[in-house]
Amino acid sequence: MTRRAIVAAALKLLDERSFSGLSLREVTREAGIVPGAFYRHFESMEALGLVLIDESFRILRDMLRGARAGKLDPNRVIESSVEIVVASVTERREHWRFIGRERSSGVTVLRYAIRTEFRLLTSELATDLARFPGLNAWSTDDLNVLATLFVNSMIVVAEALEDAQSADAIEEIRITAVKQLRMIVIGVTGWRSSP
Amino acid sequence: MTRRAIVAAALKLLDERSFSGLSLREVTREAGIVPGAFYRHFESMEALGLVLIDESFRILRDMLRGARAGKLDPNRVIESSVEIVVASVTERREHWRFIGRERSSGVTVLRYAIRTEFRLLTSELATDLARFPGLNAWSTDDLNVLATLFVNSMIVVAEALEDAQSADAIEEIRITAVKQLRMIVIGVTGWRSSP
Repeated sequence: MTRRAIVAAALKLLDERSFSGLSLREVTREAGIVPGAFYRHFESMEALGLVLIDESFRILRDMLRGARAGKLDPNRVIESSVEIVVASVTERREHWRFIGRERSSGVTVLRYAIRTEFRLLTSELATDLARFPGLNAWSTDDLNVLATLFVNSMIVVAEALEDAQSADAIEEIRITAVKQLRMIVIGVTGWRSSP
Repeated sequence: MTRRAIVAAALKLLDERSFSGLSLREVTREAGIVPGAFYRHFESMEALGLVLIDESFRILRDMLRGARAGKLDPNRVIESSVEIVVASVTERREHWRFIGRERSSGVTVLRYAIRTEFRLLTSELATDLARFPGLNAWSTDDLNVLATLFVNSMIVVAEALEDAQSADAIEEIRITAVKQLRMIVIGVTGWRSSP
């Protein structure tokens, strides 16, 4: 299917450079089609970029929604959330390399779309947190600060995974991420360090 | 001075795109010199990139060292640290836009140099933390997790500052950052939310 071929070609070329440096001609050449055929599938290069963003976040969103519907074990909520992030990022590694780069890119449309996706994740997380015992009395502002802390930590995890080459490296990132989130929950003052 | 003109020209051109999309010829044209003159000041484009990284981190490093030497008020250590980050990033906004973009760029030399700078900041912070009462019994591993949490939060703050256009927007970022760091210290379980 030509549409998939265009997406795959773009992802391949984006592995080594930023979206702003990518031309329509290069993408169609890589996909093995004539330049004009591009417009049968995408309105513009930016529209293609937005599809890549949507695909990147879709697995993550679906897995998080599934976890919510299935009512996560409250004692394993941190571990399960980290596992979801690790699984969805490693499953779409090329996509997430693109996200990591374009998050602070010169292409305004893409940068804003990515930030909106992260803001949406943060907002949904704040809503989840509001239902937790002990947190239901928190102000909305404080819930958002906490949700932002969690999402930011997960963005850093996603970035670290990009460069992780082995199963061991991925496992180390996972363990550190769980520890970070636990530390946020318990806090420095309540943390009992063990060597 | 030609060297400064080259740096300024590169920063100006980098405002809108990534380093990998920048050619030596464009930089020298913008600086108003002939291409060959570039090599009297820099070995290569990558060497120029490394100078930009060094300049970006230098103010931050100097301010943090000054704060350490002057023995920060322990009751204001979070506020003061956030103020230092805000001041050094807003003072070199173009530099930090470049850092934000190249942190996950295709130019391997620059990406590694930036990560090394952040790793160095993290390591120095872990050493500082080791001296704090209550933290001196923590394992090195846990101190590093905590330092990473702090540095990651500050990276996100630096990124947010890039897009902050007004003094009000900057102030809002500063207040949120202080709250985030306090929340990490006190922890979710110990946090008393006020509306």
